[in-house]
Amino acid sequence: MPKARKIINDPVYGFITIDHPLLLQIISHPCYQRLRNIHQMAFAHLVYPGAVHSRLHHSLGAYHLMCTALNELKGKGTDITEAEELGAKLAILLHDIGHGPFSHALEHELIKDAHHESISLLIMQKLNEEFGGQLQTAIDIFTDQHPKKFLHQLVSGQLDVDRMDYLNRDSFFTGVAEGVIGYDRIIKMLAVKDGNLVVEEKAIYSIEKFLLSRRLMYWQVYLHKTVVAAEKMLIMILRRAKALIASGIETIGATSAIDKFLQSSGSEVTIESLLDDFCDMDDHDVMATVKNWCHHPDKILSVLCKAIIHRKVMHIKLQSTPIDMDFQEQKKKEVAGIVGIDEADASYLAFGGEATNLLYNINNESINILHKDGSLKDISQVDNPLIDVKISEPVKKYYFCYLRV
Amino acid sequence: MPKARKIINDPVYGFITIDHPLLLQIISHPCYQRLRNIHQMAFAHLVYPGAVHSRLHHSLGAYHLMCTALNELKGKGTDITEAEELGAKLAILLHDIGHGPFSHALEHELIKDAHHESISLLIMQKLNEEFGGQLQTAIDIFTDQHPKKFLHQLVSGQLDVDRMDYLNRDSFFTGVAEGVIGYDRIIKMLAVKDGNLVVEEKAIYSIEKFLLSRRLMYWQVYLHKTVVAAEKMLIMILRRAKALIASGIETIGATSAIDKFLQSSGSEVTIESLLDDFCDMDDHDVMATVKNWCHHPDKILSVLCKAIIHRKVMHIKLQSTPIDMDFQEQKKKEVAGIVGIDEADASYLAFGGEATNLLYNINNESINILHKDGSLKDISQVDNPLIDVKISEPVKKYYFCYLRV
Amino acid sequence: MPKARKIINDPVYGFITIDHPLLLQIISHPCYQRLRNIHQMAFAHLVYPGAVHSRLHHSLGAYHLMCTALNELKGKGTDITEAEELGAKLAILLHDIGHGPFSHALEHELIKDAHHESISLLIMQKLNEEFGGQLQTAIDIFTDQHPKKFLHQLVSGQLDVDRMDYLNRDSFFTGVAEGVIGYDRIIKMLAVKDGNLVVEEKAIYSIEKFLLSRRLMYWQVYLHKTVVAAEKMLIMILRRAKALIASGIETIGATSAIDKFLQSSGSEVTIESLLDDFCDMDDHDVMATVKNWCHHPDKILSVLCKAIIHRKVMHIKLQSTPIDMDFQEQKKKEVAGIVGIDEADASYLAFGGEATNLLYNINNESINILHKDGSLKDISQVDNPLIDVKISEPVKKYYFCYLRV
Amino acid sequence: MPKARKIINDPVYGFITIDHPLLLQIISHPCYQRLRNIHQMAFAHLVYPGAVHSRLHHSLGAYHLMCTALNELKGKGTDITEAEELGAKLAILLHDIGHGPFSHALEHELIKDAHHESISLLIMQKLNEEFGGQLQTAIDIFTDQHPKKFLHQLVSGQLDVDRMDYLNRDSFFTGVAEGVIGYDRIIKMLAVKDGNLVVEEKAIYSIEKFLLSRRLMYWQVYLHKTVVAAEKMLIMILRRAKALIASGIETIGATSAIDKFLQSSGSEVTIESLLDDFCDMDDHDVMATVKNWCHHPDKILSVLCKAIIHRKVMHIKLQSTPIDMDFQEQKKKEVAGIVGIDEADASYLAFGGEATNLLYNINNESINILHKDGSLKDISQVDNPLIDVKISEPVKKYYFCYLRV
Repeated sequence: MPKARKIINDPVYGFITIDHPLLLQIISHPCYQRLRNIHQMAFAHLVYPGAVHSRLHHSLGAYHLMCTALNELKGKGTDITEAEELGAKLAILLHDIGHGPFSHALEHELIKDAHHESISLLIMQKLNEEFGGQLQTAIDIFTDQHPKKFLHQLVSGQLDVDRMDYLNRDSFFTGVAEGVIGYDRIIKMLAVKDGNLVVEEKAIYSIEKFLLSRRLMYWQVYLHKTVVAAEKMLIMILRRAKALIASGIETIGATSAIDKFLQSSGSEVTIESLLDDFCDMDDHDVMATVKNWCHHPDKILSVLCKAIIHRKVMHIKLQSTPIDMDFQEQKKKEVAGIVGIDEADASYLAFGGEATNLLYNINNESINILHKDGSLKDISQVDNPLIDVKISEPVKKYYFCYLRV
Repeated sequence: MPKARKIINDPVYGFITIDHPLLLQIISHPCYQRLRNIHQMAFAHLVYPGAVHSRLHHSLGAYHLMCTALNELKGKGTDITEAEELGAKLAILLHDIGHGPFSHALEHELIKDAHHESISLLIMQKLNEEFGGQLQTAIDIFTDQHPKKFLHQLVSGQLDVDRMDYLNRDSFFTGVAEGVIGYDRIIKMLAVKDGNLVVEEKAIYSIEKFLLSRRLMYWQVYLHKTVVAAEKMLIMILRRAKALIASGIETIGATSAIDKFLQSSGSEVTIESLLDDFCDMDDHDVMATVKNWCHHPDKILSVLCKAIIHRKVMHIKLQSTPIDMDFQEQKKKEVAGIVGIDEADASYLAFGGEATNLLYNINNESINILHKDGSLKDISQVDNPLIDVKISEPVKKYYFCYLRV
Repeated sequence: MPKARKIINDPVYGFITIDHPLLLQIISHPCYQRLRNIHQMAFAHLVYPGAVHSRLHHSLGAYHLMCTALNELKGKGTDITEAEELGAKLAILLHDIGHGPFSHALEHELIKDAHHESISLLIMQKLNEEFGGQLQTAIDIFTDQHPKKFLHQLVSGQLDVDRMDYLNRDSFFTGVAEGVIGYDRIIKMLAVKDGNLVVEEKAIYSIEKFLLSRRLMYWQVYLHKTVVAAEKMLIMILRRAKALIASGIETIGATSAIDKFLQSSGSEVTIESLLDDFCDMDDHDVMATVKNWCHHPDKILSVLCKAIIHRKVMHIKLQSTPIDMDFQEQKKKEVAGIVGIDEADASYLAFGGEATNLLYNINNESINILHKDGSLKDISQVDNPLIDVKISEPVKKYYFCYLRV
Repeated sequence: MPKARKIINDPVYGFITIDHPLLLQIISHPCYQRLRNIHQMAFAHLVYPGAVHSRLHHSLGAYHLMCTALNELKGKGTDITEAEELGAKLAILLHDIGHGPFSHALEHELIKDAHHESISLLIMQKLNEEFGGQLQTAIDIFTDQHPKKFLHQLVSGQLDVDRMDYLNRDSFFTGVAEGVIGYDRIIKMLAVKDGNLVVEEKAIYSIEKFLLSRRLMYWQVYLHKTVVAAEKMLIMILRRAKALIASGIETIGATSAIDKFLQSSGSEVTIESLLDDFCDMDDHDVMATVKNWCHHPDKILSVLCKAIIHRKVMHIKLQSTPIDMDFQEQKKKEVAGIVGIDEADASYLAFGGEATNLLYNINNESINILHKDGSLKDISQVDNPLIDVKISEPVKKYYFCYLRV
């Protein structure tokens, strides 16, 4: 058993303290260490060079905020047992363990119908067996089966520590000051009312700022044109590779983990049966494969791979109205001509779609505000000149990407 | 030609402005983009999870400080032509372009006698040809052939912008507050005297702090036991692979770039002839290779690779006195027994050495201080109770690593 | 003449450089040094203990941003002569020189119809005479008589460096993270089009955040209940003192500067004739007077003064709807009874009013956005889901203060 | 009784939480509120304009660090009762309550033999009576009568939270980055061994940095020439006023609190009998008095006062060797001639002395380091190339101030 106390330097919060042997064991488990090699923000570093932090770092940060939030709630008299505390900490530590490399892009490309949250659950169950059932409370909290709802809401809800950390951490590493949130104030104002997580009235400005920061990060960073285009290109690379395989052409150069998923992609193979392989796969597999394929004989595959590696990201139009079909057709022809491929294949190199809430759901921002008199109101009901009723309108954008030639 | 002005968000300095077409062309060149996939701090992220910034990011940061320093000097009346300004900016942008992946560890393992500075020069010369001689002044400054010595000293000297950036950036990303330096004050106090870079007397406290920060970062971060052990393990992996190749065993699983270097490692092949391959190689190659070799039939290779990937870094002793030989022998035996290998091969899994100025030279810290009366004094001659004469003493440590079994 | 270069440490921007002899002379002039003893945020430190920075510090900060903005514009090719540059720097350095102590509260109490901006102009004219006309361009810019409108707009406009500094600095010293603005990005995006200051399209998120931060600071800090109540109390103290004087009662204990203003307050004396006395008066006069009056025989005066000094700030209701008259009357009676004064005088200790845009005008937020195609649009016309059309709605609140008894 | 939980924004630590009714009562007591109007750094703001934070703010900050440290120690199993916790928090909150305005300068000028620590104790005893003995444990801890020595050491010792806060806070507000210390790491490494406060071995680099930061702040800030000169001028102002009173000349213009102390200064009056007056006196008294005396008929008094108010601080020589007596005599003559006073009185306007450890004692830096094997070593005994043996050498400087004419 590892020693029971570890302090980790974190540029965002200063220090993160791990003070339970089980937490230390989980953190040093290969399944968790894999997250070290998965970028939290995928290709965002192509635009924001500092955005190279890992999912491991984010989940440690979210864990730290969970510790702070639990302490705050306990200080206000909320009843939380030691087992629940450990469970909530484990749940947040493991909430992203099911993320694969570039998961927003690849979630449905490498294996069908495998959402990262359900993979997280599978891995938690696997670990629960390995650790003799010690993760059961964590799993109950993660899946909202635990009677104290607020614990689940801290892991996944409108004010959960997951998004508090990612907004803050992503702002920090990108250098986009607009995304910084007053997480410490929000956490200090958390309370539990009738078993649910609420915030005290005094936090209303911080909440308003929190919601705005999310929207700003959404448009300025997460949906940045170059980032979106790079992710789309990666999808096309995988699709092309699968098409080649389907037509019997070898795609030598994939790392063994990637290869396994590509080979099984047409079949009925489930994520359950590939879980160990999944736990072996990280960004290095994807990037090394893409690098090797730069020299692949298939023109489409090599053109796309080189464009990623040399950061010649596709042109992208991103707008509120649908993109003109003639423009799309013309670009496809041009690209096909220049690269020297069939027009039928041009849609690998020039393609469009819709970017609605592509990365993070920003609807349903219902947040309960606890007034001094003990009453609860949803934030949209609060009489405050700062609160913008339009906050929950959905936003959709149309995009069209085409090779930079 | 790309448009002539670009602003890059940087969490350390806020914004970095690129405002010359040639600078933009260099930055978007594949040789430069390669640095995006090379960690500035190699394995330091195993201890400091935030330390995942790239060499590309560092060289942009050093470029930013160069811009600031040149502006400051021009403001004080130092004569710097536009061509020299561009040259100095190009020189610092490219000063690290010859770094390979994990270069402090691998510099002499993948190819003999190829120091990263000489590779930087080779690549700069290659680019100079490609860009029709536009990099000649940059090369002259880099190699200290340019008559205005202070320009070279800004690139490489006791107070160069290279180390100002890396100390600051490494502190920032590790979260080690002790390493933060007052770079803005030092830069504001830079001056040129008789063609050489000096600092004004008022900066003396900042310089003292700068020297101390270097020492602190050196011991607390760059020579952190776990980091040193991981680098040593990587060296052993490459050595084992080369030994296997030499004995005719295939080491399938290396990416194509790594494979080329391994195959040629025993031969007389020079870096010049492999320069294009070198420019294809980054951290993804090393890490994907190590991942693939986790399944290699050679026990030593697979044991070492798994230990890296699962972060089961070797035990390491690091001390001021030589490590007891009996202890070393005993550990070798133990390890050989447990892993099940010949004792002759145990030195792959249990080995020692000296860590003297392993990463950065901290000797020769001569810094010229410009007094108000115009006289110059070396910092060690300054009558100041804060200045520690022992500052330039060499420091050596002995280490011994052995597998965690 | 003082030496021509000075560097001032500033916790907000790092260093502020003064590099012109005239600027140094102005800064060391007693009129300017007076600002050292005037709190930028008056009584805000009663709630935010860090908010004790001075108007001198703020105007140095605004000067620093002016330097940055002018450099940026010159770098983009905007024609700015050396005389204009110096003028703009002097104008911003002196823009607040007409502020008296607690000026938002006392502006119309100590001397009638004397707005701080017109006093600033008077003092600038006085200095202009003293310095042989060297401030003429500064005065022209300050009064918008200079032909290049953008210089005035940098001093006073929707995106002027004054409010950029105060929002940022006030956030910094209060510790209210919500008010931090991305001033560096906004300044980097400033441009001049047809002689007017505009911002490039890319800054739109930063502008949105800037506008929101202003609103947040407005409600969370500038109009904080306790701060408003303390300012109202100070007004009542002065009113009471003037009433006592008018009825022939001596108000021994005022410092000589305060005394002069009180004595002349009923008369036709103008600010012009009292300008030298005005330039002698700072927060120490007000606070020492209030402290001395704690022992004044007049109950109302001493009660109010003690309440300020001991931080027993009045209760205050602050709401969107008018405050119930019965409640007001009842409170007046209560207070009069407890303190033992006539009900006729109770309105010194229990009083109400409206707080509409009390401190800073937040209407008229028209900001010109420069699009890539060279066209201009007001920010409210920009098609962007983040821009909130309601941003320019006026906001009014009703308040009622009464003694804490 | 005030409500039992209050959160205060602090730019240094984010938020400070007060969660005990007695703490809130103490904080809102007039004796404590007085600290709001006493600058923590006296005249340092003449050089560092941001250095205007109050002693109230510092003591809240030190209280916050105390809370953190106690939590950390409790987390490591140190036995601390609730009463002790409250006592330690009260002790640190009140540790500086005996500071008068500009106390480093005026401590022995306004009343003889009254050291601020003994006045703090007097006020704590007064409050203890007022609060029915609830402060007894705090007093015992403050005076080191409490059996658990480490509690006193947290209030006042080599690693106490007092100096951790002031170094950090003074760095923050001055903008002198060199003074920033890694307080969070040091606090996380505190432990109790045999009843005494020690630090774990891992903190050694942070401690080294802490000691260096102290020295840097000492020379760069606390003993900055201009700051020292201004303090010396204030001493001379008081001495001159006392001399005038002694010779029967009225010094109209002093506020009532200052006046009382001046009048009694020659007598046998003790601080005990003037304690209430002492608790009425703050920076506003000193500064308003100095302002009023700018117009005093005594030339020496008015010249000195104007020099302070207009920031025409005296010239000062500050050096390691004694200042030449001839130079001193010559300057005295010059000054006397120009101002038009007797040479006998010239020593008010030109005077010298020694600045040895003027503000803070930096000797006796013995710090116990707790090694992993449980052994204790003083930091000077630690085998570490970073530790500088000269760290505890005393430092003395000679100064000579003379009027800027």
